[in-house]
Amino acid sequence: MNIDILTLFPEVFKIFDCSIIGRAKQKGIVSINIHNIRDYSLDKHKKVDDYPYGGGAGMLMKAQPIVDCIRSVKKKSKGKVVYLGPRGKTFNQEVAKRLANENELIFLCGHYEGIDERARKCIDEEISLGDFILTGGEAACIPIIDSICRLVPGVLSSKISYEDESFYGGLLEYPQYTRPEIFEGESVPEILLSGHHENIRKWRRLKSLEVTRKYRYDLFKKVQLTDEDKKLLRKK
Amino acid sequence: MNIDILTLFPEVFKIFDCSIIGRAKQKGIVSINIHNIRDYSLDKHKKVDDYPYGGGAGMLMKAQPIVDCIRSVKKKSKGKVVYLGPRGKTFNQEVAKRLANENELIFLCGHYEGIDERARKCIDEEISLGDFILTGGEAACIPIIDSICRLVPGVLSSKISYEDESFYGGLLEYPQYTRPEIFEGESVPEILLSGHHENIRKWRRLKSLEVTRKYRYDLFKKVQLTDEDKKLLRKK
Repeated sequence: MNIDILTLFPEVFKIFDCSIIGRAKQKGIVSINIHNIRDYSLDKHKKVDDYPYGGGAGMLMKAQPIVDCIRSVKKKSKGKVVYLGPRGKTFNQEVAKRLANENELIFLCGHYEGIDERARKCIDEEISLGDFILTGGEAACIPIIDSICRLVPGVLSSKISYEDESFYGGLLEYPQYTRPEIFEGESVPEILLSGHHENIRKWRRLKSLEVTRKYRYDLFKKVQLTDEDKKLLRKK
Repeated sequence: MNIDILTLFPEVFKIFDCSIIGRAKQKGIVSINIHNIRDYSLDKHKKVDDYPYGGGAGMLMKAQPIVDCIRSVKKKSKGKVVYLGPRGKTFNQEVAKRLANENELIFLCGHYEGIDERARKCIDEEISLGDFILTGGEAACIPIIDSICRLVPGVLSSKISYEDESFYGGLLEYPQYTRPEIFEGESVPEILLSGHHENIRKWRRLKSLEVTRKYRYDLFKKVQLTDEDKKLLRKK
């Protein structure tokens, strides 16, 4: 997986040297190249923003540096250009899975009040992180790349650890416990200490269903309950 | 605004020294204190994770270091403890506005397969960034803090620049243009060069409505259209 990031704040992406994504980069499974849009400005002062036509507060990113930066990156990458902005489809695990299947991706981070509309001709897809406003696309880019990269084979240590988790089966995860057996008076549920794998599996399935029903009824409604699920929920 | 972040990866949060949040820190409007959960481990090897009871892949964060770290931070902060996890309400601009009114906030970032269920007794609220899986809470914490901090008075240069933007009025923003007037053959819409403020305001309102209807019909449906809105949309 080869990722190019186009930004006015390259220093932000030092973050990808940390933790699991940092390790994936070191192992050569993922490569992340940062491009400073400012380097592509043809303005003699390397200006990248200007006032909006028609008035209004704040500055806008000019089209020229963005368009030239994208064209330069596209000489080496066949990846689609993903712009992080509010018009886009809301990012979710489905989008993460789809993008994790690509070999190359190019992310464009906007800043200030947005980009000159005419830069959009170089954009293939717009993605929104959610219905909230950020100071720039960089803060959206970080969780999106994190979420995509952890699905790339070899980034996580085992296949199980990403298949088992919340949302992957449309349900939230069951409660988990680790040592000690008793913590400040609270015990681990006895069934988890029983060693009875089938009972543990059923308990976890039931808890997943219950937790999802309680906290995310919208997700629960979408789940196709199996006969076993119905039986587990009835027994309670 | 005083923010405490509890994490196993403190180096990630160097990111808040950059850009707009970095400037707000320098100006003393926002303070962000990072706490390493590992420092609170009572284990002689400073262990913070362990295998889940009942089996399964991956490691779980132990309750003791989390609980002790929260208690230590709470000696100085009255902020509510916000855990970034999938059971939470999905973060949006409403949540951002609500949290931006707090003077103090404490964010707990989970990692690995999650936290021991018994650490939850110290958590006041759980927030989810969206329906996707991350390698850790840190990648969720970054956009959430960014989104909250930009609403704190003094962080952005003018009040207008955050009131005018996408989502603040429930609509997406109108298309914006900056110099030059013609870019690669494409002109700025003439009305924006007219200097006629009232016509520009109406044009922008109409474009906001159109863009929202086209890209985010779910948001458009929720907007209470004014008489002027209906007239603008009819005229087209």
